[in-house]
Amino acid sequence: MANSAYQYVRDFEQPDALPPSNWIVVRIDGRGFSKFTTKHSFAKPNDLRAINLMNAAALEVTRSLVDVVLAYGQSDEYSFVLSENTTLFDRRAAKLATTVATAFTAEYCMLWPEYFPNQPLTRPFPTFDARCVCYPKRRILRDYLCWRQADCHINNLYNTTFWNMVLQGGMSQTDAELELKGTVSSDKNEILFKRFGINYNNEPLVFRKGSIVYRKYEMKEGEGSGAGKQADPTSRSQMEKERKRKMKAEVVVEHVDLIGDAFWEARPWILAGRRGEVGGE
Amino acid sequence: MANSAYQYVRDFEQPDALPPSNWIVVRIDGRGFSKFTTKHSFAKPNDLRAINLMNAAALEVTRSLVDVVLAYGQSDEYSFVLSENTTLFDRRAAKLATTVATAFTAEYCMLWPEYFPNQPLTRPFPTFDARCVCYPKRRILRDYLCWRQADCHINNLYNTTFWNMVLQGGMSQTDAELELKGTVSSDKNEILFKRFGINYNNEPLVFRKGSIVYRKYEMKEGEGSGAGKQADPTSRSQMEKERKRKMKAEVVVEHVDLIGDAFWEARPWILAGRRGEVGGE
Amino acid sequence: MANSAYQYVRDFEQPDALPPSNWIVVRIDGRGFSKFTTKHSFAKPNDLRAINLMNAAALEVTRSLVDVVLAYGQSDEYSFVLSENTTLFDRRAAKLATTVATAFTAEYCMLWPEYFPNQPLTRPFPTFDARCVCYPKRRILRDYLCWRQADCHINNLYNTTFWNMVLQGGMSQTDAELELKGTVSSDKNEILFKRFGINYNNEPLVFRKGSIVYRKYEMKEGEGSGAGKQADPTSRSQMEKERKRKMKAEVVVEHVDLIGDAFWEARPWILAGRRGEVGGE
Amino acid sequence: MANSAYQYVRDFEQPDALPPSNWIVVRIDGRGFSKFTTKHSFAKPNDLRAINLMNAAALEVTRSLVDVVLAYGQSDEYSFVLSENTTLFDRRAAKLATTVATAFTAEYCMLWPEYFPNQPLTRPFPTFDARCVCYPKRRILRDYLCWRQADCHINNLYNTTFWNMVLQGGMSQTDAELELKGTVSSDKNEILFKRFGINYNNEPLVFRKGSIVYRKYEMKEGEGSGAGKQADPTSRSQMEKERKRKMKAEVVVEHVDLIGDAFWEARPWILAGRRGEVGGE
Repeated sequence: MANSAYQYVRDFEQPDALPPSNWIVVRIDGRGFSKFTTKHSFAKPNDLRAINLMNAAALEVTRSLVDVVLAYGQSDEYSFVLSENTTLFDRRAAKLATTVATAFTAEYCMLWPEYFPNQPLTRPFPTFDARCVCYPKRRILRDYLCWRQADCHINNLYNTTFWNMVLQGGMSQTDAELELKGTVSSDKNEILFKRFGINYNNEPLVFRKGSIVYRKYEMKEGEGSGAGKQADPTSRSQMEKERKRKMKAEVVVEHVDLIGDAFWEARPWILAGRRGEVGGE
Repeated sequence: MANSAYQYVRDFEQPDALPPSNWIVVRIDGRGFSKFTTKHSFAKPNDLRAINLMNAAALEVTRSLVDVVLAYGQSDEYSFVLSENTTLFDRRAAKLATTVATAFTAEYCMLWPEYFPNQPLTRPFPTFDARCVCYPKRRILRDYLCWRQADCHINNLYNTTFWNMVLQGGMSQTDAELELKGTVSSDKNEILFKRFGINYNNEPLVFRKGSIVYRKYEMKEGEGSGAGKQADPTSRSQMEKERKRKMKAEVVVEHVDLIGDAFWEARPWILAGRRGEVGGE
Repeated sequence: MANSAYQYVRDFEQPDALPPSNWIVVRIDGRGFSKFTTKHSFAKPNDLRAINLMNAAALEVTRSLVDVVLAYGQSDEYSFVLSENTTLFDRRAAKLATTVATAFTAEYCMLWPEYFPNQPLTRPFPTFDARCVCYPKRRILRDYLCWRQADCHINNLYNTTFWNMVLQGGMSQTDAELELKGTVSSDKNEILFKRFGINYNNEPLVFRKGSIVYRKYEMKEGEGSGAGKQADPTSRSQMEKERKRKMKAEVVVEHVDLIGDAFWEARPWILAGRRGEVGGE
Repeated sequence: MANSAYQYVRDFEQPDALPPSNWIVVRIDGRGFSKFTTKHSFAKPNDLRAINLMNAAALEVTRSLVDVVLAYGQSDEYSFVLSENTTLFDRRAAKLATTVATAFTAEYCMLWPEYFPNQPLTRPFPTFDARCVCYPKRRILRDYLCWRQADCHINNLYNTTFWNMVLQGGMSQTDAELELKGTVSSDKNEILFKRFGINYNNEPLVFRKGSIVYRKYEMKEGEGSGAGKQADPTSRSQMEKERKRKMKAEVVVEHVDLIGDAFWEARPWILAGRRGEVGGE
């Protein structure tokens, strides 16, 4: 029963390394979460316990994978951005997607009792699919993140209006849906303000902006500018030093705008290249 | 903050549908399991609680995905075979790999207390990577499964001998490794028998053969032969009927040889095509 | 000016080997041939010189690539079928597609004066794009060839009717198109017969069936059945012997039906596997 | 004989569109050219007729494909650079590779008599394979071109030395090869100078630098800087205007250094983005 006669089956595996010099986004999405949230009675339009659980899981995943430079989450999805030059798992797409997705799933399941202490998790257990997408330029990666944050805003404005119409306004879900059909942002803002006295802009940032997870460094002088560096940043010892520094760095969760430049300008190391350049690619 | 300006980032997602008319194997592998098993004090060479936990998780995954026709597990890996013509997730590789891997991970974490009641699961939590491989012919798929079962045998014979030398024979791990270097199967069998009175062939089948998970049908007359069928098996109502029948079918775990023909001949429906043909492809 | 600093750019090449144990079809298509045929005054509905030129080019390509087991051509396209287990160019898709396409293009250009002696070839010169498609089963490969031959029939019946209406019947192209809209095969057969006395079934086979190019062997006893073989067909010397035999075999062009079984049953070696099996895969 | 039953075979074609916002290099390589050049008695170490033929073919290909922004050739290879945002053939890899390769092959065959008037082209005719490679950044694309030009230099220095040793020095090819083994550039320069009075730096640029093909525009004021533009460069009419301008632009062949910045700074439009930006990506 030697297995050499069967080894040829390995040739059927197809290589799936993602091309070098591209930012890699691994986005996970909750599977069947509309059913899951109903079954576990999530609050509408937003359940803060559920958001905090998502963020806690993302924080642990980011902590354990130092090549994650930033993660952005909203609703039942989270996007993990891997450094442009990461060599994690030799950039193999299946390894990256399944590692992030299973790590997130394990954290979500294990952290659940902390956030939903009185509600045991029942089958079907929460799971997440994942996909990898490559972004060849920093500017396009930023547009990807803008896309997700703009999506968060649009959905949250809709959901906030809809659920106020239903829960406070006593409308049926069908009627609320019907009335909202074709409305634009200003219409929804007006409904919220006129009928329910809600100024949408005062809603909590965590709902309006989603959640950003990243490593908080103390910037050292000259960093992020490419200037004044003497140690070769690609040398093995420098890279190891860098890895250790990232392992020790505090990972934080924030709820701020990342569409404008302010967020990035204040944290230049997040999208810095391997050599610390921030500017032209 | 409309998101239309950012929608172009979606064009960077690459299609990843696997080619039609190929058996799809999704194989999951425990990540960092040698550390994990040490930390959680798994018995050597085999920990029956851990094997039972793997099998219980595989059973649940198989139950929830009716297109899984068979799963084979050994050590910290499990291969899920999807029907040749499955249209699950439009055969998208990332969806398939992450769905199977996260479902398995969730089950493993949630079922843990049942199998290790006195040992809380601690970080890093168990996770599994996964990959999809396409096999164009039934015969090659069977060779894949032979490869994994032959591998199970080879590893188990080695581990059984090694750990008896260490645990019963009092050798150091280094010495045992050294002595086993270059030995063939018969040498190991002899060590086991002469030194420890162990006839390897009497070792439990679950260790020697691994675990096979599949749906146990009652074969209806004429089935699996393609003969005597009248209903069109590709019609929507027939497919739905078939799906329901699979949902209801008992899922079992067995520890038997799948290298020879006997297993397959006794269970012709497992690798039957969509129309019930078993023979020439 | 050493080039070692630039070598990293090689890492951007993505592997493109096609999966093993799949029939590979390389189909070439004339680029912009409706313009090209007009410019070079091809006869309508079929120009026999042009068809003969296509076939002559296909013959040379088949002759030069022994792993081509069959080629099928119609109109300005040709499909080259490569043996299921070919290792030509390590099955790399780009190599296969460009080699076949450029060899065909070179032959087409160089053979042109033989078939169009009084018409010099002018810019834009004839070119062909190509794509590779994998077929995992013999039966599906045959369906691919059926698809192309059925397409040949459908187009030729339409074109024969259309051009008779225009050239013999004196109709404008617009009127002919209009009248043919929505007609089925029997309608076109009737137009041909009633108006122009043409029995479509008597039209030349080369127009109705397209062209099949393949190697004509003398079958040796026991071949194609897998029975009675003694020499290992995968040994290096046997494979070399086989290659030489193919190099010497006559390559022929025929115009016959390949949708039914007759063609294949009379020439079992064409789709035989590496070991000469013809039956179940 | 309707073909609808066979249409399913189309589902086996795999999509192969290259990711957006990447420079695409299509590199063609002569197949079996060492045999081909021997058979057609090419001069050693460089045959100017052959180089001119390669360049003439590349010029025609560049002329016919307006999205080719630059082509670089040396020996029997040519790299065609397609604009970062080209939508030619929807960026499908097989279409791009085979179109460029067959166009080049056709030109090479048809132009042959002009450059080798007394030598008819015989079988096997010259053919070229091709591959597509994506470069995500302008800087990496430039490194790719540097790699090819550095390669040209290294090969040409070697070949010039080798063939002078053989043809002028009367050494056997084996002896020349042996002596050159392990030598560095300065060694070869010295052999050339001391033994044959050749100053390598005075060798023709076409041999030392290879050939660059590109469109020569008159730069209009404000172009290439992104400043002062008023018309939307992505509007349909602007793009059509741009296409026409490119069609009319003179295509030139030059033999200069492209490793330094000078070439690019003097011709900023070559690698300008869609909106004319040259700077940061």
